[in-house]
Amino acid sequence: MTIVSFLDYASVLVFAITGALVASRAQLDLVGFAFIASLTALGGGTIRDLLLDRNPIFWIANPTYLGVAAAASLVIFFTAHLFESRMRALIWLDSFALAVAVAAGVGVAISLEQSTTIVILMGMITGCMGGLMRDVVVGDVPVVLKQGELYVTAAFAGAATATVAKVYGLETPLALLACAAATWILRAGSLAFGWNLPVYRSTPPKS
Amino acid sequence: MTIVSFLDYASVLVFAITGALVASRAQLDLVGFAFIASLTALGGGTIRDLLLDRNPIFWIANPTYLGVAAAASLVIFFTAHLFESRMRALIWLDSFALAVAVAAGVGVAISLEQSTTIVILMGMITGCMGGLMRDVVVGDVPVVLKQGELYVTAAFAGAATATVAKVYGLETPLALLACAAATWILRAGSLAFGWNLPVYRSTPPKS
Amino acid sequence: MTIVSFLDYASVLVFAITGALVASRAQLDLVGFAFIASLTALGGGTIRDLLLDRNPIFWIANPTYLGVAAAASLVIFFTAHLFESRMRALIWLDSFALAVAVAAGVGVAISLEQSTTIVILMGMITGCMGGLMRDVVVGDVPVVLKQGELYVTAAFAGAATATVAKVYGLETPLALLACAAATWILRAGSLAFGWNLPVYRSTPPKS
Repeated sequence: MTIVSFLDYASVLVFAITGALVASRAQLDLVGFAFIASLTALGGGTIRDLLLDRNPIFWIANPTYLGVAAAASLVIFFTAHLFESRMRALIWLDSFALAVAVAAGVGVAISLEQSTTIVILMGMITGCMGGLMRDVVVGDVPVVLKQGELYVTAAFAGAATATVAKVYGLETPLALLACAAATWILRAGSLAFGWNLPVYRSTPPKS
Repeated sequence: MTIVSFLDYASVLVFAITGALVASRAQLDLVGFAFIASLTALGGGTIRDLLLDRNPIFWIANPTYLGVAAAASLVIFFTAHLFESRMRALIWLDSFALAVAVAAGVGVAISLEQSTTIVILMGMITGCMGGLMRDVVVGDVPVVLKQGELYVTAAFAGAATATVAKVYGLETPLALLACAAATWILRAGSLAFGWNLPVYRSTPPKS
Repeated sequence: MTIVSFLDYASVLVFAITGALVASRAQLDLVGFAFIASLTALGGGTIRDLLLDRNPIFWIANPTYLGVAAAASLVIFFTAHLFESRMRALIWLDSFALAVAVAAGVGVAISLEQSTTIVILMGMITGCMGGLMRDVVVGDVPVVLKQGELYVTAAFAGAATATVAKVYGLETPLALLACAAATWILRAGSLAFGWNLPVYRSTPPKS
């Protein structure tokens, strides 16, 4: 198994769990769990593959990804009540999924020899779009819009870390690990310690 | 006309009517009716075609589909007030559209010789995604998330029925009819008699 | 620079500003500004390119578009407070972006020798989808659904103007200018003078 497919599997697994936790809050049945879990887990990578004209899409080429999402749904359907706080679990699991998905997106774009700009963007898209679709479909405020938290910014910094690491001669697997680590540390620091960037603030608009 | 294109036309027609009914609730003009109707009617099949790299997309290959959606919009623009309950009409029409769209998606995937897993998924995607986009765009709770109703589950069961029927040697047209019938019966039974699968229930989360 | 790429740049620039203004209302950080700005600015053209199987996508072929969106985000991050009314600025800027984006979409479809129906639709999709995604992601009522305003209708009329102009022998650049002008005049007339088409009205539904 290559490092990219390991990252892909890991992000599918963890994002699927977050999707299933959202489905548990909406009190869906088992197929509903699998639907939201798959949308979350496969959404970002699917958009990446469509944009890069990667054919076939990764989960059509290898339906094992679907099995992973379905298995995660099944387990969460019967165990979601064990989480002391599902919302807290969701947010922290989402941070891990974000980190590995950004790295997976970066890895795919590097393997397709895309430019640095596109590599960084594909990391951000792979990391952020699945969770964004999950939140939009269930009507939550998208996690990418949470004020004063690093999310898209963490994805951007992580993806940029990978490209800098490549410039300094790191092998791709190490660059991807650095990418996942940087993304997660920034996201986790934002959740745990309130790390953030200055946000736009203004006096209230006049109309 | 093949069975698959018949199913495609039927699902486009009926989904377009549901989209136009939603547009009537939002009090749009005629072009707005056609826009929401087309998004609903063509959305699921478009995502299917993009994912399967089917080129050109079905309604670019054959713009008659657009004419069907536009004609449905025109008729509903002038007749929506005749429905005694537009919401009730919408839900029941949506059940027919779901059933034929699932069968159409399954039919396309079978014709492209996809694996069983992908055939089932393409049925679900073709059936569910148009209505999902309709509901998300207008800000309704997506019908796929209605608690205690069979919707995605009906699509899954219908698509699975088609693949089982194929294994037992049924011709594709009959398998697709079985698919549409199974999907509709489950969805209609859910609406009329409250059929459902056990949903996730828990004590309220602690935070 | 061709007329189509000029229109593409202009629509990316102005839509990016609208996205950044929306990001300022959500009080995001600079990367959040760039994210929403890019989604808005590149979303419609991306869907157009995916549907037409244009490969690579315009902003992958030419990442300058991303630079334009990022630069617009940076400027708006520091200047949004200067707008007397950000909401008013947003709506009027959106009208310019709509007009040039419709023309850009029409231009691309003409250059790919699509049929008249598809040319018109690609204009509408390029013009409307970026703003639609912006509004759905941030939870606003999509501008395409504003009751009694010309929006999708303006896009449709503008795109139709271009195809009629072509039939009467106008060169493509002039036809595209006519398209942008017609779209903008209708949208601006709707905003300034309340121009609209009859909307669907009914007695309240019985249930």
